[in-house]
Amino acid sequence: MLKPTSSAIIVLVGTTHPGNIGGAARAMKNMGMSSLRLVAPRVFPSADATARAAGADDVLAAATVYDTLEEAVADCSLVIGASARPRALSCPTVDPRTAAVRVAETMPGSSAIVFGREHSGLTNEELDLCHLRLHIPADPEFSSLNIAAAVQIVCYELRLASLAETVAATGESADHQEVGHQEMERFYRHLEKVLVDLDFLDPANPRHLMRRLRILYNRARPDRNEINILRGILTAIEKYEETLKRRGD
Amino acid sequence: MLKPTSSAIIVLVGTTHPGNIGGAARAMKNMGMSSLRLVAPRVFPSADATARAAGADDVLAAATVYDTLEEAVADCSLVIGASARPRALSCPTVDPRTAAVRVAETMPGSSAIVFGREHSGLTNEELDLCHLRLHIPADPEFSSLNIAAAVQIVCYELRLASLAETVAATGESADHQEVGHQEMERFYRHLEKVLVDLDFLDPANPRHLMRRLRILYNRARPDRNEINILRGILTAIEKYEETLKRRGD
Repeated sequence: MLKPTSSAIIVLVGTTHPGNIGGAARAMKNMGMSSLRLVAPRVFPSADATARAAGADDVLAAATVYDTLEEAVADCSLVIGASARPRALSCPTVDPRTAAVRVAETMPGSSAIVFGREHSGLTNEELDLCHLRLHIPADPEFSSLNIAAAVQIVCYELRLASLAETVAATGESADHQEVGHQEMERFYRHLEKVLVDLDFLDPANPRHLMRRLRILYNRARPDRNEINILRGILTAIEKYEETLKRRGD
Repeated sequence: MLKPTSSAIIVLVGTTHPGNIGGAARAMKNMGMSSLRLVAPRVFPSADATARAAGADDVLAAATVYDTLEEAVADCSLVIGASARPRALSCPTVDPRTAAVRVAETMPGSSAIVFGREHSGLTNEELDLCHLRLHIPADPEFSSLNIAAAVQIVCYELRLASLAETVAATGESADHQEVGHQEMERFYRHLEKVLVDLDFLDPANPRHLMRRLRILYNRARPDRNEINILRGILTAIEKYEETLKRRGD
């Protein structure tokens, strides 16, 4: 029998209680999923994690550990960050069901769903690495779910989306060549450098402007051709300076 | 603001680990639910339950304890029993989404969802008290969910069913100020002019490049703030030329 699973990667950032890592691993395996990445867990591996995994030891054993979220999602073209609190400045917000559809539309193995710390969630800087903000429609008066419980809901929706054959057909156009996280980061660094050259960006206070531009371009999710065009424009601006300088000589 | 909640009753039968009772209480409260009934719990109340409830103490405090499932569901007109294993002789099986719809169709406060023991689930006699069997579509090879995780999925679906009417209305965030067609056209003309200045765009053959950029920015659907930033960058490029020319004089 067909065993539909989602190839999405679950990323846990700064988890304090190892039991929650085990609970998340069990929730994943229950839904047929196996790719777990941990960013700076407080304790791992841990007997508590193994106990709560209750048989999902293989998911824990295969988990990879990173120092930063940026490294953990370097190879991902769709990064979705779970966040209970609305942010003043944020990428588009989706619910778990919509997130699962977006994952199903993305190339297998290149989507990550990111869950933050037990008490403080994800930082704004971490959310800025995300293309979408995931909001679980909890009671606003008691909105903080246990991490393993949040992972369970998301993996459940991912499994349902994998089981629904119809989703597969609605993907992006075939020639939409996805751009990895590192390539996007190179684009942002190039953009920031040129904006400083232009005196448009104050290097002493770059955050707000660059965050707005990130939100805009992450929303657009440029493909490889488009990134090449944008990078080409930035290079033309750099060369334009040289050209004008030569003309001025 | 409306706070949609489900009035369904969660019944836990013969729970061994009090932590799971606490986890279930938290999962319920996260989804705006509060009616918890316990059938012959091994330990209750318990510090472990309170710790895992993480603030859902009120749900635990209001929980009522029964000797048998029959007593616990005596006042319920719809009883749904969760069971991972298919039974030879069983009532109709529903998934969590369908169960939530059935609950929403039933008189408020008269539906119960029943979860069995950690290792053995519900007995056949207990399932015979149920009108429907609930099956969570887990991986058949690792199908036993933690009780609190199973409660979380079911309460999530119950909440979505309660929210269903309002969900349709939620679109983009309120502060996304849309940009009209003319404003976008002004942006594209400005962009085209600057790209010609930069020698990046051949005015004799502009079509293909501008179309690609239009597709990119139309996909992003910039809001007013974002268009102002992009126009500001274009103007900075124009002024940069003047600045450099002045420097070159």
